[in-house]
This record gives sequence, structure tokens and C-alpha cells, in this order.
Amino acid sequence: MNDVNAAPAKVRVSLGARSYDILIGPDLLRRAGAEIARRLPGVRAAIVTDANVAENHLATLQGSLADAGIEASAIIVAPGERSKSFATLEEVVSGILDARLERGDIVIPLGGGVVGDLAGFASGIVRRGMHFVQAPTSLLAQVDSSVGGKTGINTAHGKNLVGVFHQPQLVIADTAVLDTLSPREFRAGYAEVAKYGLIDRPEFFAWLEKNWQAVFAGGSERVEAIAQSCQAKADVVARDELEKGDRALLNLGHTFGHALEAATGYDSARLVHGEGVAIGMALAHRFSTQLNLASPDDAERVEAHLAAVGLPTRLSDVPGGLPGAEQLLTYIAQDKKVSRGALTFILTRGVGQSFVAKDVPTSQVLSFLEGALSQ
Amino acid sequence: MNDVNAAPAKVRVSLGARSYDILIGPDLLRRAGAEIARRLPGVRAAIVTDANVAENHLATLQGSLADAGIEASAIIVAPGERSKSFATLEEVVSGILDARLERGDIVIPLGGGVVGDLAGFASGIVRRGMHFVQAPTSLLAQVDSSVGGKTGINTAHGKNLVGVFHQPQLVIADTAVLDTLSPREFRAGYAEVAKYGLIDRPEFFAWLEKNWQAVFAGGSERVEAIAQSCQAKADVVARDELEKGDRALLNLGHTFGHALEAATGYDSARLVHGEGVAIGMALAHRFSTQLNLASPDDAERVEAHLAAVGLPTRLSDVPGGLPGAEQLLTYIAQDKKVSRGALTFILTRGVGQSFVAKDVPTSQVLSFLEGALSQ
Repeated sequence: MNDVNAAPAKVRVSLGARSYDILIGPDLLRRAGAEIARRLPGVRAAIVTDANVAENHLATLQGSLADAGIEASAIIVAPGERSKSFATLEEVVSGILDARLERGDIVIPLGGGVVGDLAGFASGIVRRGMHFVQAPTSLLAQVDSSVGGKTGINTAHGKNLVGVFHQPQLVIADTAVLDTLSPREFRAGYAEVAKYGLIDRPEFFAWLEKNWQAVFAGGSERVEAIAQSCQAKADVVARDELEKGDRALLNLGHTFGHALEAATGYDSARLVHGEGVAIGMALAHRFSTQLNLASPDDAERVEAHLAAVGLPTRLSDVPGGLPGAEQLLTYIAQDKKVSRGALTFILTRGVGQSFVAKDVPTSQVLSFLEGALSQ
Repeated sequence: MNDVNAAPAKVRVSLGARSYDILIGPDLLRRAGAEIARRLPGVRAAIVTDANVAENHLATLQGSLADAGIEASAIIVAPGERSKSFATLEEVVSGILDARLERGDIVIPLGGGVVGDLAGFASGIVRRGMHFVQAPTSLLAQVDSSVGGKTGINTAHGKNLVGVFHQPQLVIADTAVLDTLSPREFRAGYAEVAKYGLIDRPEFFAWLEKNWQAVFAGGSERVEAIAQSCQAKADVVARDELEKGDRALLNLGHTFGHALEAATGYDSARLVHGEGVAIGMALAHRFSTQLNLASPDDAERVEAHLAAVGLPTRLSDVPGGLPGAEQLLTYIAQDKKVSRGALTFILTRGVGQSFVAKDVPTSQVLSFLEGALSQ
């Protein structure tokens, strides 16, 4: 199955002059140097990674770049969400400038969403925008954060409130490296895979209900699920690069999810992003049911699938307890998907029938949260 | 002359969906609120300014915004180039988030180039890009830094090495506020005005040779000179927004100039940006003469005009002495206008005939600098 010579799956993100390929397949890190040299001849590189990922994959990438004649330095940050900070951003920027890279050289974020968001942001501001090549090593990063050009860091005010839209030149998603993830981390990334089915691909959701075990096990179903997810994201991004409309659909489950992450102090021992999204998606479906938009059967079907793969679906699944509904609403209101004071939610009319709902009354959100907290 | 009811001069920066107006005229700060409210109804604002500018102009702007029903907070930073730092950027970003502004709200940098570059950058990264309205209060900012969307901060590696391209929604250049500038600061800004003539507008340079005293005195010639400069810059930016080619022409005098700023430790007591540019432009013309590209008469004409308005034109004009030619070359090589190790200079074939010269041999630069240091 892991034939290193097989052609990788390829998804194109179509954005005019900013278009790029996503390559998906096993053992791609070993081919990264050749793929980069072919597209960006003569570049130099700075790899940005975290200490955990460095241990497992840095040598592979460095060897691959060296074989292709690409000179590369490495910048290693601390693992975890706390590195999405101004302080670490400054360190990474400084490391890139130390390496004297120019606009046409590349930064390579090698890691999960944290490293991709952080180093993608750095590449977007050094010399007012350098080239970069995403090398995502988590399922979440492969199907979501590495595609579409959103980069950023967190502040005391909330997650991802500071960043830029900056598209990579190439994404290299090595599906074999996912075998080094913990089951919990793989599951968390899977929440984003399921999301694409729930947004507007009901057949994909049905396929996942049948094939999720094979996706978890690896092999061609895993490549297929990641490629489908990347294609779904690429389609939305091509329609609305700067999130002025449809791109907001990608936030299905995220408004509730971000509030839960904030409420648990971004403590990954309690809740990681994908788990917040899983609960958020289940809540979005139940909220839609309560608003008489969707049938209770749909909400139950979604919850059943997420629970089957081992994801949390209820507020009571968050260990350590949560604050009251009023406080959760405050976290939601600080979330960036607020437009001029009105609450915007992604709601649904059923599996694969999500839509952007503006001006959702806060009173309805509050009463829904009160009910959800008691379940 | 300062008729507050006269229609301001208007220059359009044509960048498709990112197009915007530059309004130029006396007492425009008093009309800022009305001009903003007409174009961006319903916005809220955060003014970013420094302590000096705040004393002279903040109340005027705040009053104007209040009269137009625009709610505004103020963020005040320390005056001077040192505020173009990661630390101050973080403060400004935090202030904007404290005000709970959304993407469609506006940041208003009120001040010179430092405030414009810093707060423009902040507006480009908060929520991955907010609206902003430049309110430049120095001549340099009115004719150069507030137009064209370049924003950024400095690092230990050099000036403006970190930032984004982010276009404002509107530029409001109040020509009467320039009366609060010191003569030295006005002259420094004038270097950039002269630059546009030297790049590709020989008639404008000849007009300046005749009318510069009226430009310094204020009135309609000042408005005319600023409008011509903004038009010149707008034309270049429209051709090459992201500096992939022609926009580099705007760096005439800047490669030498930035090296001099670095060599004097960005100490404004010794050298301010515009003074570095004036010396840099004189050097660029003399270097072009030495390379047999331009006639010595042109170099003398340029030097004579810059000297007439009181600007420095020679390396020996920099107080406190300079390092040797080798060290100056190091500063030039770290400057961002380096492309793959080759030195890029803006050279000229005569007044108003500048061009981008790539692959200028470092040996020629070195021998030119050695000669220039001994003059």
C-alpha cells in the first residue's frame, strides 16, 4: 500500500496567480525536496517545526531537501498552542531573517496546525510576504489548516484574532506520518473530515459512516478521505478566498467549539480543537433542530457517527466542567465571526445542507445553551 | 488660501476592488469625519497616534469624527522610529482588540511615517485585515508612506523587513497641519517629493526648481506638489502593487539611504529618513555618472537643487562620521532590495530617467563608496 513510487493524489487550489497544488500520499516527506525543486528551482529554505515533530520527521525532510540541493536551516519552537503567540512569532521571524532568506525563498512549516499557522504567518510578514510550502504532519493540518491561506496567532482576546491571508506555493501531505499521531489526535482531526460531509457533501458523509475504520487504519481510504476533504476546502476557498461570504461555512461547529476552547483555557488536556469542533457540530445540528430547521433524525445521525469514532458530542463530555450559559455566550460574542454585533452561526437543514445564518438572536442561543448544559 | 470649504484635490489609486482616494487640501482633518462617514457608513474607529501629534491634532480629529457620529477610541504610542517594533505592534493590536473593532471598522493612523507604517501593519493583521484610513501629518507620510499600502516595522536586522501590503480605504492629507512641522522635517519630506521628478517626471523636477520656495511656504503650490507626488506614486503602485518590478523605482536613493540610516543607528539626531534619501539620490546620480550612464551635469543639477533647499547631499554631510566602505556595503547587502545575492540599484540616465539595474557588481559599488567617502 505505501508504495513510495506511486504518484500522489493531487488537489488543485484555484486562485488565479496564487493557485497551488496539494500533494497527498504515503512517504511524501521523502520526496518533498524533489517536488519543491521542480516547482521552485534555486530556492533556499527555513524549516519551522516543534520539538516533538522534529524528533520524528525533521531528519527525513532535511535529507530530502539536501538530496535535491536545497540549502535549509531549521527553527524549532515549543510544541503546543502557546507557541501561537507574538513572542514566538518574533522568534520565528528573527530566525528567518538570520538565514537571510529573500522573498522568493521558502519557509516550510513542518508540523500540525500550530506550526502551520505560526510559520505561515511569519512567512506572510517577512519582507511583506515570502513563499512557503506547507508540510502538515497532523490530520487536522492536512485537511484543514494547511489549505486555504489562513495563518495567525492567538492573543489574550481569543484565538486566531491576529494573522494574514497568505497562500502557500505547495502543500505536501504525507499520509504515512499520521501513524505517529496518538489516536486522540487522529480522532480530533477526523472531526474536520466529517465536517466537509456535513457542510455540503452528504454522499461523502455517508461514505465516511461506512469507511471510517479503514480511514483510521491507513491506506487508500485514508488518502481518499484526505483528498476529498482538501478538494472540499479548495472549492470553498476558490469561491471566497477572503471569507466575505461562503467561506464562513467552514466554521460549522467552530463558533461553539471556539467558545469551549476559551472556556477550558485552551488546555489541551481537557479539550483539543477538533474535539471542540465535534461538540460544536453536534450542537449546531441540535440547535438547528430546536429552531425547526432540521429533523431530529439528522442531529441523532451526526451525533451517532461522531460518538462511534470516539469523539465527544455533548457539553457534559468536557472534563472539568464548564461555566454557565451567560459566560459561554460571552466567549461566543468575542469570537471573530461576529458581524456588527449580531451573532452569526452556521446552521443546517440536514446532513450536507449547512448555511450561514446571520442575526441569530442571542436569546435563542442562550436558551439553547441552558438546555444543552443540563444534558 | 486656506478655505475650509474649497473642494480638496483628489488623486485616485486604481487597484480594482482595492482602489481608493487620496484627498489633499488645507484643514481636511476638520472634515475627516464627514468624508469617512460618507464612504464607510456605520463604522467605528481606533485612532493610533503618537504623543507629539496627539497634542497638536488629536482633538481636531476626534471632534470631527464625533460630529459625524463615528465612535472612536485613541491609542497613543511613543514618538519616534523605535515604535516600529514588535513590542509596540503588539500594544497597538491589543488596543484595537480591546475596542472590539470588527473587520469592517477602521483604524486611523494619525501621524508621520512611523505611525502610518505601524498602525497600517496592525490593521493588516487584526482579524487578518481590517479597514483603515490614513491621516498623515508629515510631508513624508503625505507624499510617500501613506500611499500604496506598504506597512511594516523594523527589527535588529534592518528597517521595514517585517510587514504586509495592505491598502487603506482612504487617505486624508491635511496640508495645513504641515505648518506644525520643523523646517528640518519638512525638508526631509521634500526629498521624496523631488524623488518623483527624478524617477520619471523631468517637468515636475523643473517645476520644483522654480517653485520650491512656494511649496515650503504653503498654499496652492504646496497642494499642487503633494498632489503631483501622490499621482506619481499612485501610477507606479497601480502598475506594480506588490513590488515585482517597476515599483522598485520608488527606491531611488533608498538603497544608499537605508544603509546610511543603519550606519547611524537610526539616530534621528544624526540622520532622518528623508536626509538619507537625499544623500542617496545624489549618490545614485553620481554613481550613474561614474558608470557612464548619465552626464555629470545631471548629477550636479540634482545636487544643486537638494542643497538649495537645505538637504544634505554628501557622505561627509552626515554628522558623527561613517564606517568604511566595506561596512556600508554590508548594510546595503542586508537591505531588502537584494535579489538572490545580486545587488539591485536604481540608477539613472539623467533627470527623470531612472531605471532598475540588477546585478550591479559589488566591486563597483565598493570602489564608488570609497571615492564618495573621501569627498
